[in-house]
Amino acid sequence: MTKQLTVLDVTLRDGSHSMRHAFTEQQVRDVARGLGEAKVKYFEVSHGDGLGGSSLQYGFSKVDELKLIAAAKEECGDSAISVLILPGIGLKEDLKNAVKAGATMARVATHVTEANVAGQHIYLSRELGLKTVGFLMMAHMAPTSVIVEQAKLFESYGAEIIYVTDSAGAMLPHEVKERVAALKSHVACEIGFHAHNNLSLAMANTMAAVEAGATYVDGSLRCLGAGSGNTQTEVMVAVFDRLGYETGIDLYRTIDVANEVVAPFMPRPQEITGSSLMMGYAGVYSSFLLFTQEAAKKYNVDEREILVELGKMKAVGGQEDLIAEIARNIAVVK
Amino acid sequence: MTKQLTVLDVTLRDGSHSMRHAFTEQQVRDVARGLGEAKVKYFEVSHGDGLGGSSLQYGFSKVDELKLIAAAKEECGDSAISVLILPGIGLKEDLKNAVKAGATMARVATHVTEANVAGQHIYLSRELGLKTVGFLMMAHMAPTSVIVEQAKLFESYGAEIIYVTDSAGAMLPHEVKERVAALKSHVACEIGFHAHNNLSLAMANTMAAVEAGATYVDGSLRCLGAGSGNTQTEVMVAVFDRLGYETGIDLYRTIDVANEVVAPFMPRPQEITGSSLMMGYAGVYSSFLLFTQEAAKKYNVDEREILVELGKMKAVGGQEDLIAEIARNIAVVK
Repeated sequence: MTKQLTVLDVTLRDGSHSMRHAFTEQQVRDVARGLGEAKVKYFEVSHGDGLGGSSLQYGFSKVDELKLIAAAKEECGDSAISVLILPGIGLKEDLKNAVKAGATMARVATHVTEANVAGQHIYLSRELGLKTVGFLMMAHMAPTSVIVEQAKLFESYGAEIIYVTDSAGAMLPHEVKERVAALKSHVACEIGFHAHNNLSLAMANTMAAVEAGATYVDGSLRCLGAGSGNTQTEVMVAVFDRLGYETGIDLYRTIDVANEVVAPFMPRPQEITGSSLMMGYAGVYSSFLLFTQEAAKKYNVDEREILVELGKMKAVGGQEDLIAEIARNIAVVK
Repeated sequence: MTKQLTVLDVTLRDGSHSMRHAFTEQQVRDVARGLGEAKVKYFEVSHGDGLGGSSLQYGFSKVDELKLIAAAKEECGDSAISVLILPGIGLKEDLKNAVKAGATMARVATHVTEANVAGQHIYLSRELGLKTVGFLMMAHMAPTSVIVEQAKLFESYGAEIIYVTDSAGAMLPHEVKERVAALKSHVACEIGFHAHNNLSLAMANTMAAVEAGATYVDGSLRCLGAGSGNTQTEVMVAVFDRLGYETGIDLYRTIDVANEVVAPFMPRPQEITGSSLMMGYAGVYSSFLLFTQEAAKKYNVDEREILVELGKMKAVGGQEDLIAEIARNIAVVK
């Protein structure tokens, strides 16, 4: 029996980071049409930081995401549209509007230890009849036991799928496998995996997740996404075909969309630069990078040493004041 | 006990393909100095197709490779220089001259089923006192039993290290593991692995090789190499550090060289484009690409269908006339 696998393309959501949230309606239409023709079952359209992310803090979208969702819906044939929503950023009203615009899946995303803030969003998502996903971000920051406990919370609220999300591209294949396998034994939901390529392991980690039982995997065309980008959708389709999995996707059509639609509008290629490598190596999310560079300059220390210390302390958003303190300490020791 | 691993950087050899063999002496000096400072034990300097590759057929080098080897030698401190030589392209005289210029390792490369042509080059290499490697290219094309037999030939000639070389970036991790493990049980030599990233698996395959017992691994800074490039040296150093291996390499210094020296002179980033993905998926070497595109146009068929057929037939260099035949057949069936 062929093993089934659902590929969810996030070009039009995670790619929003790389595009500085400046997707045009035409770009979204072209990608959505291509993904539909390629028979990609789900793809996501939202601001990079989810519904309602368009703001001074996270960057304003060039085009309102509801307009982009509606445009994508007109083009995408039988493919279904997912939206990402982070409680605290996206409001319930945003989700209702996204549904009106054409979304049929909601992925409710929280930090890996904070699933407890997602209850109301999950309830609403189910109430609206959406396929409902709990999305555990920065999964490298919590031990497997905590991830299991958080997944159970998501499940208790009504999530149908639980994602392990390697937001910083910091995980190694054996770490992915351990976490996904534990979820498979402790929750009844289907399991998904979302990778970033900062350690050049996005494809390997995605394979590890699938070997451990994940049935939903995220990718983006030409890797377009935050940091070093995601697992490359068209490459993933090829690799899983070679491995004997059935994705239902037309490989050549995904290559065409990546080459002819996405590559031409990318502001820069998704290489693994020194900075993005360090994010993955230290396990720190990219929002710290700018503060780190400033502190490194001020205290005349190597920014990479600061990042490694931040990673050891498992710093999260909101703890930016730690950065100057770490830089001062490194400077004193020298 | 920490596990030891030797990283060999091929930026100045495999990268020659991406640079259209146009490395300048200054570029080579800057990379060699950086690799020396980073304590990379070995690095390779040669035309992309090995010593003597500078020719009408393979592309002329901008600067004579002997001059580049000598320049690298002046800069590289305690690092050692390797050269690649393909019997049939590189002459014995080329190897002698490379030694005079400063090389201390020779990697004698043949198609995976043709180690028998390498005897004289291996003897000479040992006679010249070089660390001597047998390099089995296009390793995905032969079953494990054949690779073992070919490695034994190399060993009988005097090779000290045998490389499994995934020239087309076509191998999957379990295939790498099986081949390396078999070599570990059947030959006494150390085992090396050389990857290409066409399926986004260069890092994963390199890890699989090391898990199976390989102790030499190739990389290139910023991936600079043929096709989608190689395992990214600086990323590999970070990943193996995280996995508990000792490479003796200064990670931050490799990042500096990649960012400040290599990235600025790269003609284009090493993305996984549609063409390079298809090379890896079909298992076909890049030299077929141009002929395939021409035949696809002439017979009005999808070039990707031709590549997949070529891969199935395990076509090798010299069989270019097959391409038109395949294209005609596909056109007729339609």
